[in-house]
Amino acid sequence: MTSRPGDLNDLMSKHRPGYALPREFYTSQAMFDHDIDKVWNRNWIWVGHESQIPEPGDYFLFDYGTESLIIVRDRQGDIRAHLNVCRHRGSRVCTEGAGKARVFVCPYHAWTYELSGELRAGRDMGADFDPAKWGLLAAQVIVFQGMILVCPGDDAPPLATALEQLAPLTAPFAFEDLKVVHEARYPVPANWKLAVENYLECYHCAPAHQEYARSHTLKSPQQMAALMPALQERSAAVGLPTVELNMTGPDAIAPGADAYYRRYPLFEGYKTGSRDGEPLAPLLGSLTGFDGGATDVSIGILNFFLVYSDHAVGYRFVPRNVQETDIHVVWMVRKDAEEGRDYNTDDLTWLWHVTSQDDERIIRHNQAGVNSHFFRPGPLAEMEWAINDFYDYYKKMIATA
Amino acid sequence: MTSRPGDLNDLMSKHRPGYALPREFYTSQAMFDHDIDKVWNRNWIWVGHESQIPEPGDYFLFDYGTESLIIVRDRQGDIRAHLNVCRHRGSRVCTEGAGKARVFVCPYHAWTYELSGELRAGRDMGADFDPAKWGLLAAQVIVFQGMILVCPGDDAPPLATALEQLAPLTAPFAFEDLKVVHEARYPVPANWKLAVENYLECYHCAPAHQEYARSHTLKSPQQMAALMPALQERSAAVGLPTVELNMTGPDAIAPGADAYYRRYPLFEGYKTGSRDGEPLAPLLGSLTGFDGGATDVSIGILNFFLVYSDHAVGYRFVPRNVQETDIHVVWMVRKDAEEGRDYNTDDLTWLWHVTSQDDERIIRHNQAGVNSHFFRPGPLAEMEWAINDFYDYYKKMIATA
Amino acid sequence: MTSRPGDLNDLMSKHRPGYALPREFYTSQAMFDHDIDKVWNRNWIWVGHESQIPEPGDYFLFDYGTESLIIVRDRQGDIRAHLNVCRHRGSRVCTEGAGKARVFVCPYHAWTYELSGELRAGRDMGADFDPAKWGLLAAQVIVFQGMILVCPGDDAPPLATALEQLAPLTAPFAFEDLKVVHEARYPVPANWKLAVENYLECYHCAPAHQEYARSHTLKSPQQMAALMPALQERSAAVGLPTVELNMTGPDAIAPGADAYYRRYPLFEGYKTGSRDGEPLAPLLGSLTGFDGGATDVSIGILNFFLVYSDHAVGYRFVPRNVQETDIHVVWMVRKDAEEGRDYNTDDLTWLWHVTSQDDERIIRHNQAGVNSHFFRPGPLAEMEWAINDFYDYYKKMIATA
Repeated sequence: MTSRPGDLNDLMSKHRPGYALPREFYTSQAMFDHDIDKVWNRNWIWVGHESQIPEPGDYFLFDYGTESLIIVRDRQGDIRAHLNVCRHRGSRVCTEGAGKARVFVCPYHAWTYELSGELRAGRDMGADFDPAKWGLLAAQVIVFQGMILVCPGDDAPPLATALEQLAPLTAPFAFEDLKVVHEARYPVPANWKLAVENYLECYHCAPAHQEYARSHTLKSPQQMAALMPALQERSAAVGLPTVELNMTGPDAIAPGADAYYRRYPLFEGYKTGSRDGEPLAPLLGSLTGFDGGATDVSIGILNFFLVYSDHAVGYRFVPRNVQETDIHVVWMVRKDAEEGRDYNTDDLTWLWHVTSQDDERIIRHNQAGVNSHFFRPGPLAEMEWAINDFYDYYKKMIATA
Repeated sequence: MTSRPGDLNDLMSKHRPGYALPREFYTSQAMFDHDIDKVWNRNWIWVGHESQIPEPGDYFLFDYGTESLIIVRDRQGDIRAHLNVCRHRGSRVCTEGAGKARVFVCPYHAWTYELSGELRAGRDMGADFDPAKWGLLAAQVIVFQGMILVCPGDDAPPLATALEQLAPLTAPFAFEDLKVVHEARYPVPANWKLAVENYLECYHCAPAHQEYARSHTLKSPQQMAALMPALQERSAAVGLPTVELNMTGPDAIAPGADAYYRRYPLFEGYKTGSRDGEPLAPLLGSLTGFDGGATDVSIGILNFFLVYSDHAVGYRFVPRNVQETDIHVVWMVRKDAEEGRDYNTDDLTWLWHVTSQDDERIIRHNQAGVNSHFFRPGPLAEMEWAINDFYDYYKKMIATA
Repeated sequence: MTSRPGDLNDLMSKHRPGYALPREFYTSQAMFDHDIDKVWNRNWIWVGHESQIPEPGDYFLFDYGTESLIIVRDRQGDIRAHLNVCRHRGSRVCTEGAGKARVFVCPYHAWTYELSGELRAGRDMGADFDPAKWGLLAAQVIVFQGMILVCPGDDAPPLATALEQLAPLTAPFAFEDLKVVHEARYPVPANWKLAVENYLECYHCAPAHQEYARSHTLKSPQQMAALMPALQERSAAVGLPTVELNMTGPDAIAPGADAYYRRYPLFEGYKTGSRDGEPLAPLLGSLTGFDGGATDVSIGILNFFLVYSDHAVGYRFVPRNVQETDIHVVWMVRKDAEEGRDYNTDDLTWLWHVTSQDDERIIRHNQAGVNSHFFRPGPLAEMEWAINDFYDYYKKMIATA
């Protein structure tokens, strides 16, 4: 009644490096359950920004697949993450998506947990019962420049070194001074891996994203290379690092401990990711001007950011079921910016709203075709190199006990 | 393409007595199919009251999981239950939920069955065809004081002795003189076992059921014990037995042949399970007054009743799919009571309507949490002892061929 | 994570010839996946009429189960069928149900395929990439008197000889001069095999199809035989063959290469399959009058036609999921007939609209009953002989690698 490792090995051996994954990775319910257990539950997940829970007791839930996490600021002001599963008979402990709590009381039998996750007491559990053993399971937490990353399982990829390297590069953006001004969810009837793969390559950008391709050179390695030297001069001038940090795939310190930073040029006339090229919000952090660039940042395997000079966009591809995924897009501007005066949400979100709608469509069609028994994984293009790394890591994770 | 006993044994061995069952028992589609086949199809199910089919030919269907039963009064006036599956190519024979029939004609090829289940004739089936061999499969039937219990499979738990013991205890209520006045169904996105477990313990009553807890002492063993002697005097005075009958779990005559009877006190001021404590309907059977008590009755493993002095409520937790269950609540009063004059349905059903809505919510959250890969079955409280017995029996049933 | 042949063999051995198939064939998701892979992907499927794509570039999609086919007329005017799966990473290439195309451009990365299926070029795929190896996978195509049949897999049943035998029999109807005037889809919550079985026998016609049974003698072998000689005289007189062609089951040249032709009498007063017996459209092909007959034609295992003197009806039972099937009914008249003047669509479609609604109902109830663990496959009637042949062939197909 559970998946059999024998089959999994067969399946793994069917994958030819440099090619897409075989069909079953995207169609099997047992494989989906495995993905949650082996991949999502053991990797760093970006769940939000610390400005979303400023005070002790402030919390929000982050749900994916079969899992639910409580992200909460405790009485000491530290951010913690708890598995939202009562230690008694397993009920969800917290059922509101966000709020302010003094304690978490399970709605079933009223087992009551501190903000720190400790069980206060087990009502009528008898004399032998030791509450100290029955606190909420803790997920690991890292707050990187205000960005909250959690890893539900025990063996979290060791991210510290990568973040140390990344920190000076992103410092000028002052992520810690951002606030979330809009979150959108685009449900797509496809496996989460197809959504991640979609984000990992810009081979599709020219044909599939008219608006993005008009302003972003990433769609064309040649054009990007040609415009890079001029950008690097401008970036340096406004206070931004121009080096690339690639600690991903084989260059990561440990599997899953990936970090990536690269600033690349927008086309002439574009100061930021806006419809007309004009600014959308006040400059981030310590920037002294618009350099006409955009920065790709990734942390771990599952978390992606695109940082313009005046706003940042975060992306997550949250599994719901074997062929149901929510694309989360999160827009952030500096915390002291004011809607109406300093930015306009409709303008701010325009580009990645239309681009995400495109992605929903193409990922959906990708899944439909992959479902065919006649799907034969084809060769990846040079521009899809990051997908190869993703496959390598993914296969490593699901193969471990 | 079917479930593998090997896995099942692994799974069984993972269960630690005194703790909740492991996740897979509540999440596996194969296990659900197994539950229907091994548990529901081989146990006594309370399907209704004989007053619902007073005349020969009167029938109703009872559906659960993948199964359907025809409950019918035959020409001799006896109540029978047939598997609602044509013996030819398997069509449902009867497709209306209730009605009056002279025969059952399969809508596909018109194979025609008597009320007794016998096949009248097989149209154009050739000379060698013997209709006597192709009657509808019969479920076993017991009518206990008007309550219809059926067991679809052949090896029904031997209930006779338990019902003999139970009969004098429930006799004063005159179940045979009840009528059903309202049935409600509360669909809950959870496995049926979580719904049964919920009914089996009142550890959750205090935190989860404000209205019930105000009037029923079952939520507190201490308070119940304190008020019990006074109740027993009052019960005896109105003609009700005060003994407890516990032929359940290890005390049952045979596995699945369980019976239970216990009258427990309501809080002062409550004559019955009403909003204000006042009577809801005429006294049942031979009762001479309100004793301020309520009786828990259970028959077999799956069937529960709560009997107040003036009405009875029946509960079933009907599996639909691995995480879909219908909570059935059935209200009964004496057959000669008249709506409007003797009882008011809205008042009558108030308590268990609000209580069932609470249960729907907490069972739903229980399933959501149990779905997590991080769910670790926790220790049961003393007040949850009946769940232990249920697990023991359940494991016995699914382990047998 | 995939189905195990061991279980399949167990399941096959459970089937008793002359009886219905066991439950699991209709309930298992793994078996459904197997059915698509082993049966549908390796048999001839009638997808439409060539008049639907008269010009080069005209195309339509035909979808079933997890599969999608592009049916297109190429630049040379030939009809081709391509698997609608990009050879790169598997996206659906064509996403509109029908239209006119110059090339097929994958919406994901713009791999561009000719109408012939060849890959024009692989954008940025590097110097080693040979586009000639990455054309769309081709399904085999036969156009039989205008009817388009496709077989997605390589080992198509060898249909040529059967079609040679069939050709002179259907010639008088001039199928090549038909046009499709209406298509209806009746979704039924049942496995596709139950829908095929339903079409394969008329044992159910008398009890289940009041309208059909009033006019068609097929419901009664005795009445059909009695009226046959007179029909044969009339058929000959109007130019129609009166022989039966039965190259099905054991009489097929090869498994799956089946063909069948038989004209049978309508009841007196019925010139065609109309409500009042009167003509619905101009006489087909070279017919010189109404003979009061109807012709059953089948090609391969999955494709059925009923040909009246003035119109033809095609039937397909298209799998969607293990218990979701679309019944397709397609009405055709001569291409030069004009709606309003020569035929009226409401009148034309009346009989098979009401009959298909009946079928939806009985097939649905069949599935509901078959889902029961108590379903025991029963004996087939003499009138259900064709189901036996279907089972034999089906078991052969799913047992092969």
